[in-house]
Amino acid sequence: MSGRLISFEGGEGAGKSSVIGAVESLLVERHIEFVRVREPGGTALGERVRSILLTPGEAPLSAATELLLMFASRAQLLDEVVRPALARGCWVLADRFTDASFAYQGGGRGLDSAWIAELERRVVGRRPDLSLLLDVQVDIGLQRARGRGGEADRIERESIEFFERVRAAYRALAAEQPERWTVLDAGQPMDAVASAAREAVAGRIDLWSSAE
Amino acid sequence: MSGRLISFEGGEGAGKSSVIGAVESLLVERHIEFVRVREPGGTALGERVRSILLTPGEAPLSAATELLLMFASRAQLLDEVVRPALARGCWVLADRFTDASFAYQGGGRGLDSAWIAELERRVVGRRPDLSLLLDVQVDIGLQRARGRGGEADRIERESIEFFERVRAAYRALAAEQPERWTVLDAGQPMDAVASAAREAVAGRIDLWSSAE
Repeated sequence: MSGRLISFEGGEGAGKSSVIGAVESLLVERHIEFVRVREPGGTALGERVRSILLTPGEAPLSAATELLLMFASRAQLLDEVVRPALARGCWVLADRFTDASFAYQGGGRGLDSAWIAELERRVVGRRPDLSLLLDVQVDIGLQRARGRGGEADRIERESIEFFERVRAAYRALAAEQPERWTVLDAGQPMDAVASAAREAVAGRIDLWSSAE
Repeated sequence: MSGRLISFEGGEGAGKSSVIGAVESLLVERHIEFVRVREPGGTALGERVRSILLTPGEAPLSAATELLLMFASRAQLLDEVVRPALARGCWVLADRFTDASFAYQGGGRGLDSAWIAELERRVVGRRPDLSLLLDVQVDIGLQRARGRGGEADRIERESIEFFERVRAAYRALAAEQPERWTVLDAGQPMDAVASAAREAVAGRIDLWSSAE
């Protein structure tokens, strides 16, 4: 049996880390082997690309450069980690995946989504088995993200309008493929969001094992 | 009058630096303003990407990652340097450009050239006004490159067969668009190659100014 790929998507301060932690506990209880990866990053090369992407530089980053760097990191992650893991039956929990390019570089930056779809087809070739969208009002998410302290990275410095476009793009993606997506109200207290995520994944585990 | 873009292409040890130096002197004599850029690199971001591309890493770099990083660096170079320079009438001398992706990632790595052409269309949108191919036998070029001393970078460590494919791809590109390319026999002594390059560019300068 090949492994399953579950992605976690959402804007700034949506609470992805807590939710992924809760899903990890569930997989441990069920004795399911998994790896957790993040994007951009997840490999030695990807982490170097991440630092280029998130560190505010002197010159503005071109939108095409941003998209290509995201996919470069993703291509390496797929070859080095995701495909080998899935092939040996190991599950993959992805803290952001291709949908983030549709939301941030497509919705946020306004790049042509046909181009992103072409890159997805060439580089990725598959969609997650399940995607959880942690959906939260932009102002609440940003407040949470800023409450963590630390310097805002290059993406976190974007405008409210940018994050509104990202959120709208994520919601549109989820509406297009409702069978793949579970949308969670991430405006609730974090432990309620975490248990809703656990429940959604538990439901899929039962469904997938009954199908095998 | 908008500036002209001249690219210099060729395998390892073909003598691009000497040739570009000779063309720079010519442009100075003719009072033509120019910038010289190199790929990958040419911007702060591009130089960081260059270091990822050329430093041998622990894990092998996926071919798709290599291609996407090349185009990420190129997209930034175009936005930050090439387009603004050409727009103000300044010429650009490019030590490698898009054709290098067709030769190295297409010919060398075997990636689909239709994909590279799609990236060219999306990211670059134009071809050089003149491209000089410094064509030399692979063994002679490698001997020269190794004679320079220093550690071989990640690309220089490739096999003879890889560089034979790169050379064949470059020659095929030149044969497809003979009006854009000038092929120079870079197996000659370097000062002969440099003066042939000078002559080729001088011929174009006269042609272009008579057309204006």
